[in-house]
Amino acid sequence: MTADLTITDVRLTPVLVSDPPLLNTQGVHQPYAARLIVEIVTAGGITGFGETYGDTKYLDLARPLAEALPGRQVTDLNGLFALAATVEVDAARMGSADVGGQRGVQTADKLRLSVVSAFEVACLDALGKARELPVHALLGHKVRDRVEYSAYLFHRWEQHPGGQGESDDWGAATDPAGIVAQARRFARDHGFRSFKLKGGVYEPAEEIAAVRALAAAFPDAPLRLDPNGAWSVPTSIEVAEELRDVLQYLEDPTTGTPGMAEVASRTGVPLATNMCVTTFPEIPEAFATGAVQVVLSDHHYWGGLGRTRELAAVCRTFGVGLSMHSNTHLGISLAAMTHVAATVPNLDYACDSHYPWQSEDVLTGRLTFRDGCLDVSDAPGLGIEVDRDRLAVLHRRWLDDDGTMRDRDDAAAMRRADPGWVAPSVPRW
Amino acid sequence: MTADLTITDVRLTPVLVSDPPLLNTQGVHQPYAARLIVEIVTAGGITGFGETYGDTKYLDLARPLAEALPGRQVTDLNGLFALAATVEVDAARMGSADVGGQRGVQTADKLRLSVVSAFEVACLDALGKARELPVHALLGHKVRDRVEYSAYLFHRWEQHPGGQGESDDWGAATDPAGIVAQARRFARDHGFRSFKLKGGVYEPAEEIAAVRALAAAFPDAPLRLDPNGAWSVPTSIEVAEELRDVLQYLEDPTTGTPGMAEVASRTGVPLATNMCVTTFPEIPEAFATGAVQVVLSDHHYWGGLGRTRELAAVCRTFGVGLSMHSNTHLGISLAAMTHVAATVPNLDYACDSHYPWQSEDVLTGRLTFRDGCLDVSDAPGLGIEVDRDRLAVLHRRWLDDDGTMRDRDDAAAMRRADPGWVAPSVPRW
Ligand SMILES: [Mg+2]
Ligand SMILES: [Mg+2]
Repeated sequence: MTADLTITDVRLTPVLVSDPPLLNTQGVHQPYAARLIVEIVTAGGITGFGETYGDTKYLDLARPLAEALPGRQVTDLNGLFALAATVEVDAARMGSADVGGQRGVQTADKLRLSVVSAFEVACLDALGKARELPVHALLGHKVRDRVEYSAYLFHRWEQHPGGQGESDDWGAATDPAGIVAQARRFARDHGFRSFKLKGGVYEPAEEIAAVRALAAAFPDAPLRLDPNGAWSVPTSIEVAEELRDVLQYLEDPTTGTPGMAEVASRTGVPLATNMCVTTFPEIPEAFATGAVQVVLSDHHYWGGLGRTRELAAVCRTFGVGLSMHSNTHLGISLAAMTHVAATVPNLDYACDSHYPWQSEDVLTGRLTFRDGCLDVSDAPGLGIEVDRDRLAVLHRRWLDDDGTMRDRDDAAAMRRADPGWVAPSVPRW
Repeated sequence: MTADLTITDVRLTPVLVSDPPLLNTQGVHQPYAARLIVEIVTAGGITGFGETYGDTKYLDLARPLAEALPGRQVTDLNGLFALAATVEVDAARMGSADVGGQRGVQTADKLRLSVVSAFEVACLDALGKARELPVHALLGHKVRDRVEYSAYLFHRWEQHPGGQGESDDWGAATDPAGIVAQARRFARDHGFRSFKLKGGVYEPAEEIAAVRALAAAFPDAPLRLDPNGAWSVPTSIEVAEELRDVLQYLEDPTTGTPGMAEVASRTGVPLATNMCVTTFPEIPEAFATGAVQVVLSDHHYWGGLGRTRELAAVCRTFGVGLSMHSNTHLGISLAAMTHVAATVPNLDYACDSHYPWQSEDVLTGRLTFRDGCLDVSDAPGLGIEVDRDRLAVLHRRWLDDDGTMRDRDDAAAMRRADPGWVAPSVPRW
C-alpha cells in the first residue's frame, strides 16, 4: 500500500493567516500574511506537506511545478531542482511585491528556490511517512533532541490601522519598557533564553536604549539587534561599539557585502545576515572579505533542508557561524526547520522564529516551546498532522480577499496609518 | 522483520587482494593490497557492506568503532561521526605505513574519516535494503543513469620482483608504446574514452612523450597526468606548458598548496588534486590562492558519501571543479562511488578507478564498464551481492600473511628489485 513512491497528485493551497502589527524599517506587517501549503500525494496513498511564501509571484511559480511533478518519485530531490530550473520566472513580477530587500537580493533563482523548498519538504515528509523514518533521519539523523529558539521581539502597535484584522492581547511596544515587557512574556510563556529585537524602526539611540534595557532585565542572556540594513556604515559601527558588551551578534546593520565587510573590520561584534548572504553565489565574496561571521539560513531561501545542510557544510569549512532566520510562518515550516536544525552539528546559536506571533496554524495541535526549545520529533516524516478544516477556513479567507493581503507590502500597510509614508531608502540613518 | 534498524552486530574482515606491479614515484605496488570489508547487521536481519583501506592503522581504528556501534541506529550517520571522533588514534602508528604522501597529509582526523567512510557506506547499504531504496535515492537521487570512468594507465612491470604474487597477461609498460598499448586494451575492453597516466616514475621528458603518444593515438580524448607531487614548481610549469594543448588537467604536479598555487598562476592548464586538498580544513587556503581547479574527491578520505556530497556543494559554491580519485579498491567501494557520483550535479570529469586492475573481488559478479561507464543500480542499497566464499578465501590470505603485505609500502616492494631503493624525496625532478 505504501510501497509506491510515485507522485500522483500535488495540491497547492494558498492561505491567509492573521499577523500582528509588527513594525520594521519598511513599515508594518499587514493584518494577514499569505502562505502556500503544498501537498504531495504518492501512489502508495501517502501525503507529504510543505509550506512556503504565499505571495502571488511564488504561486505563479508553484503551479507549473506542481503540474509537472506527477509521475516522478518523491525520492528524486535532485530531479525536483532540475525541473524547477526549467520553470519560467516572470521577470515583471519579481520586483512587484518586493519587501524592500528584507529577504535579500531578489533573483529568479532565489524565487524558484523558495518555491522548491516547500516541495522538497513535502517530498521528505512523504518519504519519511512511507518508510517510517523521521525527516531528521533522512538528513543524517538528529545530533540533538531539542532545538533552541530565541524570542523574536518587535516594536508593535496594539492593533492594525483602522482596527483591521484580528486583535490580540499583547498591547503596544513602542519603547524600551514595552520591549522588556514583551520579552518577559515570551520568557514566561515559552522559556526563551535569548532575545532578538527587530530594529530599524526608530532612531538608533532609541533602539540602543531598548537593547540596554533588555540587558539590564536579562543579564547574560544572548541579545541580537536586526535593523534590516537600515544604517550607514558609520552608524553601524557606532551602534556596534556602543552595544559590544551585550550583543551576541549584530544582524544586517547595513546593506551590501562591501558595507558589511567594512563594518566587520571595524568592530569586534560578529555580524549576522539573512540579507547579504542568501544564496550560494553570494558566499565567496562575503567570506573572502569577512563581511559576515554568522549566516542565518532560511530553508525557504536556500531551497530546502538538503541545501541548508550544504550551506552548513560550507560554513563549517570556512569557520563561519550558522543559525536560522525566520519570516512569518506556520507549523509545517517550523517542524521542517526543527528537523534540519537538529541534524546540523555546527548550529551555533538559537534559531529565530515568528511562530509565537502566529495565533493561527494549520496543524491539529500547535508546536510547543519548552525552555525555549522544541523537541525533535521521531515520528515518521515531519511528525505533524494537518487540520483540514482549519486549512479550508484559512484558504477561504485567501479566496475571499480582494487582493490587498495576498502580496506582502509593509509600506502599503503603513500608509493606512500614515498616508504619506513611503518605504525609506537605505541607509535610513 | 526488517523494521528494526538497530545495529546488532558489526563484522570486520580484512582481506588481501592481488595487485599488479604498478609503478609510481614511491616504488611499486606490492603483490597484494589490504582492504577492510565492513558488515553492519541490523535487528531486522539486514546486512550492509562497506569497504576501506585495510592497513593495520585503519584496522586499529575500525575495531573500537565496531565494538561501540551495536545498539545505535543505521540512520544515525551524524552519531557515527561523533562516535568515531572519540576513538583514539595511536600517533605512533600514523606515519608507520605512510605511502609517501600519495594520500595527501596524514592526520588523525583523516585516518578516522577513511575508516568511518566504510561504516557510513555499510549503514547506507543496510538502510537502503531495509527501506527498499537504492543508495543514490538516500542521497537525493541520481541525476544520471551512468557514471563515466577514465582509464587509469600505469607504467608497470610484467611481474612482481622474484615472481611473487599472481601473474597476469598485461605484460610490461615502461615506455610510450607500452602505455599506448595499455590504453588501447582499456578502450577495447571497457570502452574508456578518457585516459589518466600515473606519472612521477620516469624523467618528465619520457612522461611527456607518453602523453604525446596517447594524444596521437586518441585524438580529442581527455588526457591527464599525475606525478603525485614529484616535480618542482619550475618543472611543473614546464610540463604543463609543454602539454597544455592536450591535457584536460594536470594532477598534483608538485607538493603543497603554495607550490600548486604558483604553478596554477603560471599555466593555463587546470590543476587537479587528491593530495593538496584532501580534507575540509585544507579548502580555504587552496581556494583562496587558486591552487586547485579540480578537487578529486575520494569518499574514503572525505568520510563517506554524505561528506562527498558536502564537498561537491563547497566546490559548486566556489566554482571549483569536481571529480573522483581512486586507490586500489574492490567492487563495494566502486558501487558506493558510483552511487554518490550519480547524485552530484557538478561532477565535471570522468572518475578514476583502479578496478580494472583488480582481478579479484568479493562480489558474486564483477561490475562491468560499458562505453567507459557504469550503470547506476536502482536495486535496494548498493545493489551488490557479496560472495562469502571469495571473502573467506581472501581473508584467509590475510590471516596467512606474515605481515609483509598487510601494510602498503611501495618502497619496500621496490627494494625487492632494487635493494638500494629509498623512496625519493620530493621534488624528485
Ligand atoms: Mg534579519
Ligand atoms: Mg592523484
